[in-house]
Amino acid sequence: MTGKRPSITKTPSVAEYQRIRKYVIDSVLAAGNMPVRLASMRELAGEFGVSIATVQRALKELTDDGYLTARKGVGLFTNPDRAWLRGKCDVIGVLAADGRQIYFENFLWNLLASTGRAVTGTRRLLYNVSLMYTTERVLGSMELSSMAGMIWLGPDFAPSAAADGFARALKVPVVTVNDRREGFSCVSMDVEQEGYEVGRRLLAEGRTSPIVVAKRRGMLQIAGLERAFREAGVPFNDRLLVLRGAGMEERLGTMLDLLDAPQAIYAVGGMLRDIAPLLRRHKLDCGRCRLIGEASVWEPDFSGWVVDQDFDALAAAACNRLFSEMRGGPRRDCLIPRIIREWKAGDSERF
Amino acid sequence: MTGKRPSITKTPSVAEYQRIRKYVIDSVLAAGNMPVRLASMRELAGEFGVSIATVQRALKELTDDGYLTARKGVGLFTNPDRAWLRGKCDVIGVLAADGRQIYFENFLWNLLASTGRAVTGTRRLLYNVSLMYTTERVLGSMELSSMAGMIWLGPDFAPSAAADGFARALKVPVVTVNDRREGFSCVSMDVEQEGYEVGRRLLAEGRTSPIVVAKRRGMLQIAGLERAFREAGVPFNDRLLVLRGAGMEERLGTMLDLLDAPQAIYAVGGMLRDIAPLLRRHKLDCGRCRLIGEASVWEPDFSGWVVDQDFDALAAAACNRLFSEMRGGPRRDCLIPRIIREWKAGDSERF
Repeated sequence: MTGKRPSITKTPSVAEYQRIRKYVIDSVLAAGNMPVRLASMRELAGEFGVSIATVQRALKELTDDGYLTARKGVGLFTNPDRAWLRGKCDVIGVLAADGRQIYFENFLWNLLASTGRAVTGTRRLLYNVSLMYTTERVLGSMELSSMAGMIWLGPDFAPSAAADGFARALKVPVVTVNDRREGFSCVSMDVEQEGYEVGRRLLAEGRTSPIVVAKRRGMLQIAGLERAFREAGVPFNDRLLVLRGAGMEERLGTMLDLLDAPQAIYAVGGMLRDIAPLLRRHKLDCGRCRLIGEASVWEPDFSGWVVDQDFDALAAAACNRLFSEMRGGPRRDCLIPRIIREWKAGDSERF
Repeated sequence: MTGKRPSITKTPSVAEYQRIRKYVIDSVLAAGNMPVRLASMRELAGEFGVSIATVQRALKELTDDGYLTARKGVGLFTNPDRAWLRGKCDVIGVLAADGRQIYFENFLWNLLASTGRAVTGTRRLLYNVSLMYTTERVLGSMELSSMAGMIWLGPDFAPSAAADGFARALKVPVVTVNDRREGFSCVSMDVEQEGYEVGRRLLAEGRTSPIVVAKRRGMLQIAGLERAFREAGVPFNDRLLVLRGAGMEERLGTMLDLLDAPQAIYAVGGMLRDIAPLLRRHKLDCGRCRLIGEASVWEPDFSGWVVDQDFDALAAAACNRLFSEMRGGPRRDCLIPRIIREWKAGDSERF
């Protein structure tokens, strides 16, 4: 029993546990200042299609946690002290990437943090959607019934068929942030405008041959860059494109060896993180070479143009879109301009 | 099989699934730009003490999600495209209240959002600790081994013996935020100073008989208030104390009926949320009665003194304390001053 192999059948599964927990917490919220008697264990077992032992175990934990109080011979009652929000209010789901992130880094967390603030700031409740357990189970459980709408952050951050299936199974409005998904409104950073703006600034400085480091061909930043060059009548040299992959370091290293200092290196998306060690080894002169990269992966001892994002503006726009669709409004995409600012190594201000 | 009662034994439990998932994601991170071959299913099954079928199922999902790529006849390899942070870096756990929040409201989310930003802003990874499933399981699994330190937000927000046991079982530094726990450093809002500051301001306006609405007797805000009165040599009338509970509305309602407009109502903690409907019914004149309450539950059409918190300062202080203890520094508590500002109904600025 206590051996190496954990017993699977002894405790209710997370899906079952969460359904019962949610039911109880919804009851506590709805009851407000009055203690209300909970349905009997038998009724709940029937309702949730689980054994009475499972209900018993879940309710014991909820009692231990203070959501319920036991009155001897009468039953379990909601504890008004735990009704931290009065009455019924909308629950907005937020799904971060694939809903299975073990760890969060800077970018996705900022997106989630701002979105949660925008949601809870409107007196709605936030449900941080987890798809950690297998999807078939989730689809039948609480998430589908409890949310009034969902914001899906960065579907391409960790692409997942399960997350896609989940979002499509929902019967409520869904707004994606950062990456488009067919059939949903999308609020995203205007990365084409970012590339265009970078291009215009580079051309203004006479830097006509930037090295572009990107995850893949066809990224919108590159399209914007090319548009700026086209408008200025300057040919764009796409032989200076360096793509992520096995040969990336060698290719970029060779360029850095050949060119004394390149005119500019535009690290699209999060690519600065990947090339920073290489730039250090080659002692890149940030005075002569214009370095451009994302704020979330910028290294403070580099100088250059930091491409930043207004996470709060993105989150506010996502909420506005979602609330509008919850009121029956039409689907519509929305672009938020990116911010490009100069950073000098040694600046004391945090970025 | 697809009936009302879900089959529990068919899928790996969340604890098992997470352990395997974490192992794979750690491998992807550690491998960096190189695809590295994963241990065999048999080895992993032995390592994690689960069946080969369980490992197989978990790895299939990780392959579907793109963390692993299958090479026919050779095995599974880490996918370098998924190594979004290079090499090894510290994981900081953040436990929000009891780790079992189904929904987040404004206050706890702001605390979590700021803490996560402070953690990920230092190039560390954030692990959002979930204690949704039963604790015995968690104690044997990933959380204990993966974190370099943990920040526990609002232990009193949803008191839980399980969360207490979990924090105490950890072998790494733990810093609590907002509420003290024996044996851990605590970073909190200086609520005694808040009460003192409120008291001084009320006395400066000649308001010597404030109604104080509180969750319970002995709250530090009340102690601070009394200190301000004591220092000024003004007797403090604690018969105007209204405590949360069954008779609260009647008691406060009677006071509002008797006094034409009270000099002041100080809603300690989140109590403004509880009494706002009553204040509305009694058409409280916020011009004559000084209303004091928390920003997180303030209603924009009220006027008064809003008690606010600098969540970012709190989060930064918690990180600093934790990192200091991770480097072997001593335990120490830390108080962050609260901000009190005037709010006039109709102010356009968001609060």
